[in-house]
Amino acid sequence: MKSVGVAILGFGTVGAGVADCLTRRRGVIASRAGVDVRLVRVADLDTETDRGVALPDGVLGADASAVIADPAVDIVVETIGGTGVAKKFMLDAIAAGKSVVTANKKLLAETGGELFDAAAAKGVDLYFGAAVGGGIPVIRAVRDALAANEFVSIAGILNGTCNYILTRMEKDGLRFDDALAEAQSHGFAEADPTLDIDGFDTAHKICILANLAFGRGTRLEDVEIKGIRGISVEEVAAAARAGGHVKLLGRAALGPDGRVEVTVRPERVPAGALLGCVEGVYNAVEIESEPAGKTVYVGKGAGRNPTASTVAADVCEIARNIARGVVRNV
Amino acid sequence: MKSVGVAILGFGTVGAGVADCLTRRRGVIASRAGVDVRLVRVADLDTETDRGVALPDGVLGADASAVIADPAVDIVVETIGGTGVAKKFMLDAIAAGKSVVTANKKLLAETGGELFDAAAAKGVDLYFGAAVGGGIPVIRAVRDALAANEFVSIAGILNGTCNYILTRMEKDGLRFDDALAEAQSHGFAEADPTLDIDGFDTAHKICILANLAFGRGTRLEDVEIKGIRGISVEEVAAAARAGGHVKLLGRAALGPDGRVEVTVRPERVPAGALLGCVEGVYNAVEIESEPAGKTVYVGKGAGRNPTASTVAADVCEIARNIARGVVRNV
Repeated sequence: MKSVGVAILGFGTVGAGVADCLTRRRGVIASRAGVDVRLVRVADLDTETDRGVALPDGVLGADASAVIADPAVDIVVETIGGTGVAKKFMLDAIAAGKSVVTANKKLLAETGGELFDAAAAKGVDLYFGAAVGGGIPVIRAVRDALAANEFVSIAGILNGTCNYILTRMEKDGLRFDDALAEAQSHGFAEADPTLDIDGFDTAHKICILANLAFGRGTRLEDVEIKGIRGISVEEVAAAARAGGHVKLLGRAALGPDGRVEVTVRPERVPAGALLGCVEGVYNAVEIESEPAGKTVYVGKGAGRNPTASTVAADVCEIARNIARGVVRNV
Repeated sequence: MKSVGVAILGFGTVGAGVADCLTRRRGVIASRAGVDVRLVRVADLDTETDRGVALPDGVLGADASAVIADPAVDIVVETIGGTGVAKKFMLDAIAAGKSVVTANKKLLAETGGELFDAAAAKGVDLYFGAAVGGGIPVIRAVRDALAANEFVSIAGILNGTCNYILTRMEKDGLRFDDALAEAQSHGFAEADPTLDIDGFDTAHKICILANLAFGRGTRLEDVEIKGIRGISVEEVAAAARAGGHVKLLGRAALGPDGRVEVTVRPERVPAGALLGCVEGVYNAVEIESEPAGKTVYVGKGAGRNPTASTVAADVCEIARNIARGVVRNV
């Protein structure tokens, strides 16, 4: 059985989840993928904190550049986040001929084109399944399962913090500020919740989906964004009385003029619509395409384990590609 | 751009849908797959009936064996159905070195092992994405997106006729016989509805999913099957009064002893559960796995267009494999 070496840059929550998944499920992965996927290097400036993942001696180090240069590393997983050093390391890895996996939606939405062009020029793979929907394989659905479809529209609940807040407001009558404070105390809203509640995180994700489904024409600045900050409990209750639900939706649709319109805003989802049934930290994406018709994908949109599942699936597919000497390159 | 030749055996509802999708979306498919997927032959004993699909001259013929032998054919799509001649042609195609795509759940559930073994021995691909869930990419989810997961349980609404009947009984108070008659008049229940309402179709599908997720140990005769025939409107109404819904569920779960238990039976889905929100002819599959957690996939489970979407996606992936000289072979 061929063997493929994987390195993880960034040993935070997601990086640790990926390391845990790849090491604990190495046997299952090998039996399914037909490739031995070995975690050979992990880089993080903090090499002391216990992340609860047992790494073999010598795997964890602080020098990301040395990891990228290591000939034993075939695939580099970027779980650093942000748009600074994460981008530099990804470009370095691509330049070194390594395939790259990332879940960095902000980076992809803002400057993805540069990364994709670099990967294509170098003939390596760049996968980003976990950048949208966490554990929901919606990127794969658009890219593979619906490969013979023409896309009509995509609408998604793409931010778990917002959906948690709206669910608590609807089910338990909490005011926005109280629901947000609760989400923060549970640890799934950031201390600065702007990226979530003002709709920017949703915008990053719908922008990535729009470009995947409709072609690379949508820039982040083209997205009309309205978040849920300050939404009133009365508005949420009024929707509920009519059997509906207020949800923050990212939406991309092909307009009659052939232009792709991309919006983020709270919408009233009518009674009986599936997206209305998606509660709490769950995310969901509804895709209308031909000939498949409507398909919907639901799961946990963030968090260590769901994100690790999707990153690991990307690693597995690239490992198969490497073992066969092919790149996806699409 | 490389070119791959496709043949369709069986020019019925699904076959015509696949022909329509492949010919009308040839350009889109080529741009995404990087391969020119050409429909070169269609075989059906009836070469006269108009299926509303424009085929180039010389494509349609009655001799399936000649189609299989044609060196221009790289991929054979089986849309004949049943377990007789469909199986023979698939084995013939595999023996001739052609990769095969099928949506034939009955055949796969009953004698799939023989087909998979033949394909593996010959080094060709055998894809069956549309055998479960029609337009829902649940086979791909289990096989690819959750490749690094360990499966805990799978529960699915896998038969649109039953779900239509149960939805009509719940929403409109129809009795079982009347809802069934209505489904038949709409054309989505067969004249002999046994396969649907007695749970056998659901059993075929959950058996395929169980074998994919948990390994090839489940035989159709191991599945405990109870359908919805004669279910009372009172039972359905009682569930609805409690906020729940009666659904025919196929279920596969890993038991505490490591055995896989597979059942088909009407279950009361509690209020708030996503599967309860799936109405009418829609199908849905809920998968519990680690580390992804719960993921749910929803879409139209049958019909010409949804099925064609998934068959065409399989054709696209095999075409990419052929263009690169690889087989999936897992």
